[in-house]
Amino acid sequence: MAANSGRHFLQIPGPTNVPDSVLRAMAQPTIDHRGPDFAELAQDVLSGVRPVFGTDRPVVIYPSSGTGAWEAALVNTLSPGDRVLAFETGHFATLWRDMAEGLGLIVDFVPGDWRRGVDPAVVAERLAADEQHGIAAVMVVHNETSTGATSRVPEIRAAIDEANHPTLLLVDTISSLGSIDYRHDEWGVDVTVSCSQKGLMLPPGLGFNAISEKALAAAEGARLPKSYWNWAPILEANERSFFPYTPPTNLLYGLREALSLLEAEGMPNVFARHDRHAGATRAAVWAWGLEVLCADEREYSSSLTAVRLGEEHDANKVREVILDRFDMSLGAGLGKLTGRVFRIGHLGDFNDLTLAGTLAGVQMGLELSGVPIDPTGLQAALEVLRA
Amino acid sequence: MAANSGRHFLQIPGPTNVPDSVLRAMAQPTIDHRGPDFAELAQDVLSGVRPVFGTDRPVVIYPSSGTGAWEAALVNTLSPGDRVLAFETGHFATLWRDMAEGLGLIVDFVPGDWRRGVDPAVVAERLAADEQHGIAAVMVVHNETSTGATSRVPEIRAAIDEANHPTLLLVDTISSLGSIDYRHDEWGVDVTVSCSQKGLMLPPGLGFNAISEKALAAAEGARLPKSYWNWAPILEANERSFFPYTPPTNLLYGLREALSLLEAEGMPNVFARHDRHAGATRAAVWAWGLEVLCADEREYSSSLTAVRLGEEHDANKVREVILDRFDMSLGAGLGKLTGRVFRIGHLGDFNDLTLAGTLAGVQMGLELSGVPIDPTGLQAALEVLRA
Amino acid sequence: MAANSGRHFLQIPGPTNVPDSVLRAMAQPTIDHRGPDFAELAQDVLSGVRPVFGTDRPVVIYPSSGTGAWEAALVNTLSPGDRVLAFETGHFATLWRDMAEGLGLIVDFVPGDWRRGVDPAVVAERLAADEQHGIAAVMVVHNETSTGATSRVPEIRAAIDEANHPTLLLVDTISSLGSIDYRHDEWGVDVTVSCSQKGLMLPPGLGFNAISEKALAAAEGARLPKSYWNWAPILEANERSFFPYTPPTNLLYGLREALSLLEAEGMPNVFARHDRHAGATRAAVWAWGLEVLCADEREYSSSLTAVRLGEEHDANKVREVILDRFDMSLGAGLGKLTGRVFRIGHLGDFNDLTLAGTLAGVQMGLELSGVPIDPTGLQAALEVLRA
Amino acid sequence: MAANSGRHFLQIPGPTNVPDSVLRAMAQPTIDHRGPDFAELAQDVLSGVRPVFGTDRPVVIYPSSGTGAWEAALVNTLSPGDRVLAFETGHFATLWRDMAEGLGLIVDFVPGDWRRGVDPAVVAERLAADEQHGIAAVMVVHNETSTGATSRVPEIRAAIDEANHPTLLLVDTISSLGSIDYRHDEWGVDVTVSCSQKGLMLPPGLGFNAISEKALAAAEGARLPKSYWNWAPILEANERSFFPYTPPTNLLYGLREALSLLEAEGMPNVFARHDRHAGATRAAVWAWGLEVLCADEREYSSSLTAVRLGEEHDANKVREVILDRFDMSLGAGLGKLTGRVFRIGHLGDFNDLTLAGTLAGVQMGLELSGVPIDPTGLQAALEVLRA
Repeated sequence: MAANSGRHFLQIPGPTNVPDSVLRAMAQPTIDHRGPDFAELAQDVLSGVRPVFGTDRPVVIYPSSGTGAWEAALVNTLSPGDRVLAFETGHFATLWRDMAEGLGLIVDFVPGDWRRGVDPAVVAERLAADEQHGIAAVMVVHNETSTGATSRVPEIRAAIDEANHPTLLLVDTISSLGSIDYRHDEWGVDVTVSCSQKGLMLPPGLGFNAISEKALAAAEGARLPKSYWNWAPILEANERSFFPYTPPTNLLYGLREALSLLEAEGMPNVFARHDRHAGATRAAVWAWGLEVLCADEREYSSSLTAVRLGEEHDANKVREVILDRFDMSLGAGLGKLTGRVFRIGHLGDFNDLTLAGTLAGVQMGLELSGVPIDPTGLQAALEVLRA
Repeated sequence: MAANSGRHFLQIPGPTNVPDSVLRAMAQPTIDHRGPDFAELAQDVLSGVRPVFGTDRPVVIYPSSGTGAWEAALVNTLSPGDRVLAFETGHFATLWRDMAEGLGLIVDFVPGDWRRGVDPAVVAERLAADEQHGIAAVMVVHNETSTGATSRVPEIRAAIDEANHPTLLLVDTISSLGSIDYRHDEWGVDVTVSCSQKGLMLPPGLGFNAISEKALAAAEGARLPKSYWNWAPILEANERSFFPYTPPTNLLYGLREALSLLEAEGMPNVFARHDRHAGATRAAVWAWGLEVLCADEREYSSSLTAVRLGEEHDANKVREVILDRFDMSLGAGLGKLTGRVFRIGHLGDFNDLTLAGTLAGVQMGLELSGVPIDPTGLQAALEVLRA
Repeated sequence: MAANSGRHFLQIPGPTNVPDSVLRAMAQPTIDHRGPDFAELAQDVLSGVRPVFGTDRPVVIYPSSGTGAWEAALVNTLSPGDRVLAFETGHFATLWRDMAEGLGLIVDFVPGDWRRGVDPAVVAERLAADEQHGIAAVMVVHNETSTGATSRVPEIRAAIDEANHPTLLLVDTISSLGSIDYRHDEWGVDVTVSCSQKGLMLPPGLGFNAISEKALAAAEGARLPKSYWNWAPILEANERSFFPYTPPTNLLYGLREALSLLEAEGMPNVFARHDRHAGATRAAVWAWGLEVLCADEREYSSSLTAVRLGEEHDANKVREVILDRFDMSLGAGLGKLTGRVFRIGHLGDFNDLTLAGTLAGVQMGLELSGVPIDPTGLQAALEVLRA
Repeated sequence: MAANSGRHFLQIPGPTNVPDSVLRAMAQPTIDHRGPDFAELAQDVLSGVRPVFGTDRPVVIYPSSGTGAWEAALVNTLSPGDRVLAFETGHFATLWRDMAEGLGLIVDFVPGDWRRGVDPAVVAERLAADEQHGIAAVMVVHNETSTGATSRVPEIRAAIDEANHPTLLLVDTISSLGSIDYRHDEWGVDVTVSCSQKGLMLPPGLGFNAISEKALAAAEGARLPKSYWNWAPILEANERSFFPYTPPTNLLYGLREALSLLEAEGMPNVFARHDRHAGATRAAVWAWGLEVLCADEREYSSSLTAVRLGEEHDANKVREVILDRFDMSLGAGLGKLTGRVFRIGHLGDFNDLTLAGTLAGVQMGLELSGVPIDPTGLQAALEVLRA
């Protein structure tokens, strides 16, 4: 790839394009993690990250991938043999289920067709049926990165409340945080799981848990073994602006810069931008005569769009052509969607003309791959962008 | 502009987008310019830059802008009162003329309409008329950055040869070097002037002179005062891999990296890429129903395209709308073209999807500015890119 | 600290000074972790890291701190209720013990005075006494970062072998890897734990496990719950040059560069350099009339030196004076050594003159703090460096 | 040098060590030099640079080395055949003389022994003798980089004033600006020449002229040919925050950052730091039993110290040993001082411990080279630093 000219188009749904200023921030010299300069950095990121989660409470930051933050949410709040309710919204929901089972939890896994989010009515129904309150937690993937369907967390919360059920609500916001409106406190989420390499515009390497008071109380009795993921010593050290083990200083430099970029743009503007780009993308898909994988318009994702091809076309071939000819990476279909969809990431550090370039690449790639499309797709997107 | 998301589209015809790896190379610590590591760097860039100029002979590198390299070409080869032949191909040819006059040269300035390159027939005619061989130098701007017209240097050379005239041939390749096919030795150019911030994909700060043996001989008798620009001490020091005054080390780091990028892509591929992007751009312009400023199809520039608007539209307004709405910089009309054209740079570190994004931005900006266009323009460009 | 001039002296025993070229490598754009460029990166680091551990076998890389790599070593090889043998060599050995207990293991913790490494004779004795082979693992901290004592792993291995005991040998090389001679395969270590921010000259954020065949076999039956740390899916994915969850791409860029720096210097030279700097440091300490904490000359650490002060002097005050006056960070005494020692890190990206500056700062700081010393200390160090 | 560990000690008297934050600032993407973001950058540096020169008036910034700024000072203020008064304070004063002669000026060159600055009494005497006021300019090198002697500009100014002579005063502050107290306006200097790579802590590539009202008036009648160096169009464009030719944007990014570092430290603190480091360096030199080249204690340079060796020792050999063994670059003796002195740069981004490391390297290098010295030299320096 050395001989490619120009900037690679990284349009997978994460890792996303890291802003130059974040990369430069990360290139600052590492400092003493027990010294006064580090304490300032820690304060900046620990307080600065809260509004992005929509919480006034502490957010735990791990040196980990998002998968680690999944594990942290489970091991801090649950005990071996606990029952949890989960939903087959796609590949990542399935992986989280697998993890829960691997850790010794019993998962009620509501089957799904990988084209929509969690159905709040099913949540209501399952919780109503659980008269003994045996369900310790409901696990929801806010935005399914494998499908581009966004679950309606406020409605799920309402379903729990109506059922008067004491369950915890654990939500994965890995590909929604910093891109799609999200409110940990207001929506009564107990643990919000996230990571660095999507809407936060950072390289991978940081995992996050936002934690409700109820989750913290649950943690007292949770008996899954834990050490690295244990909230308690981290929260305690964070109060003094330090960490119980060596923190990933340079990623925290990047986080500080990324938070200041989000703040400068303003979260409502950030969300509106993602909504607008997602709308333009769908306009292109429909004008091409193709199908958006997500089947419920209330659940269209604003951070990525999965495009469904007919059986006669291999989506991975299209992706290869596009990578080869136009130096753009798109997301593959995962799990049972392998070869059936490709995914366009339109989240993070992104703008109108990069989206136009992205959709131009998709359009040309589809044409070169022999997928019959109407070439006015890009123009349809521009009409949305120009409006 | 702090709140902009995504990467700025810098589509002026220079400075161009600097590749990340060049920026990182420039961020290396400055070293002793008289030490062994520097000597290696100097050797790398002094030898590596030659093939880009198409020369086997030394190329002088100045800490300067391209304007400095213009001055160097004149003061090293000419004497007060010398006559030179120049051509009004556009704004920069006019500025170079002004400089020559300011330095005490007498310029025969052949008028032009700013829509085409140097006419080889006029060169032939003027030299034929100059029986006394009073013309000491012919000054040609290879690619007029203000108009997007590329002069046919081989034909100019042929005209000089046919006239059997001893004149020097001085060529400005500021916006063509590293983008448009150019051959200092083969075409018999005596001094090739260039700089860093265009096809070489560097920030501004380096000027270049490639020098023929004939130019070097002329330098011996040239009597314009010179010190900083004097080739002799530089060529002498360069032989020992050093410089007579402190060289701009960090820009040379960048140059080393940029040269290796060009070499990896291969100069013929680099030229073909620029030709293709220019072709796609013109396809869009024509499909929009607009006019390319350059009036001679043999002279279309491959590094930039100037688009001409009717009297009723202000090109600067269009540029402002595009900068404001789409965070893209385009080149303004300069001198007598102010407000009449805008210029799209498609040179340097660039690729198909960035061009698509660029043209999408131009298309939307024209529409938003009320310039009546046919919106299939972008699609016409994609057809060229996809082919 | 904004008004400080010059480079901060980061002479804690890790995080260490990150070379500029590693910081620049980390500033490369993040790429698709499922694409071909990433596969190349993964191959480079997965194969390149092996010689640093002295192993021909796979090394697992986690997005984590070293603490995570501790946990990984335990949960992959052990089951709840397993007995392990550990040694109170200092603060970090104690923390690892705490972790093991927290995870449900039973730890035989051999007490120590925090001035020496693991006594191979005690290993021999304990294993001989364990006729039922109830000890599942021996946990050794190779280089105690809190004390500057390096355990003699080959002798410990010999003790295990002589006892003919099937125990696993788990070794923490957090502050020795890449600084002090270490040979995972040759010394028959089963799991070697390490991390990025010490001898590997990277920022924090990567944890490592080198794994023997025997450890891998043990992992099959190990029943501590695990998901994130589970070797199996990582080893499986690594074979295809990928990772089961999003890897910390930019730290891997840094790792690639750091490995190439170590390879260029040559591991034997790297070790000799650290030995030499440690020798010079001790020469200074002794000439000052102070005491090196490590009480056994066979166990002097080559990566850090802990300096012991008399009861009447507070080592943290000395550190504060030095940070305030000379912008140098030194390591504090940890746990029961708080205020009694300060630690000088002389590992990682380091050279003679930086060591000289470091020792000059320590010398002046001691004097300013009223600790009576002989000011020829620095000169004694220079004699070692000059030799 | 690839296999060297740790940071190179760049202790030549320029280019100096560039702070990391300046290097990162320079790695920002190049922008449109005619756009609004550039205008902000230009305003910041054009106004921010004035206090560093001690002037309230415009300072012209060139893409050039310091040599270019020398030329600019001459060609903007003088005419062919003008007489100027200059002083042989060392190598650079001699080179500036050569330039002046090369440009057609007539230079009265007062001979010197390369061990002291300009003698104000000689200035007084020469100007008094020049009753016809034929001397158009007095050229003074404020701090001779080749010798480490600092001329007393206020006393020179006083001498001119007492002589009631209308001469211009041109001062080269290349290795003093930003290191040694300097006041363009207060001292009545007409043109102050400087560049980026010394006290301004930038890579080479920027030249500066600070200009008095009197110099500006002189420029109106100055008849040396000029184009690139011509103040008039630059000053005019700068008023609108632009430049008449493409400015070196990335170096200007660095300048903005460097100016903010100087401002944060405070110029009086910057000067005091340099004075202190120079004092410590001389203390070491004297304690070693060696000689400081500068023979007048009123003229000791605070930015560099030239150390004189006896005839029996080759200073370049010492420098080679030091580079080879300790990875430190020192300045060579230049011109007639070749081999007789080495020069220690202690200017720019520098601190106590780096100076200690530097002097440790010099001390060990002298010993290794067989120069007999008293090894308490470093300790003598530490006593100054500790005080």
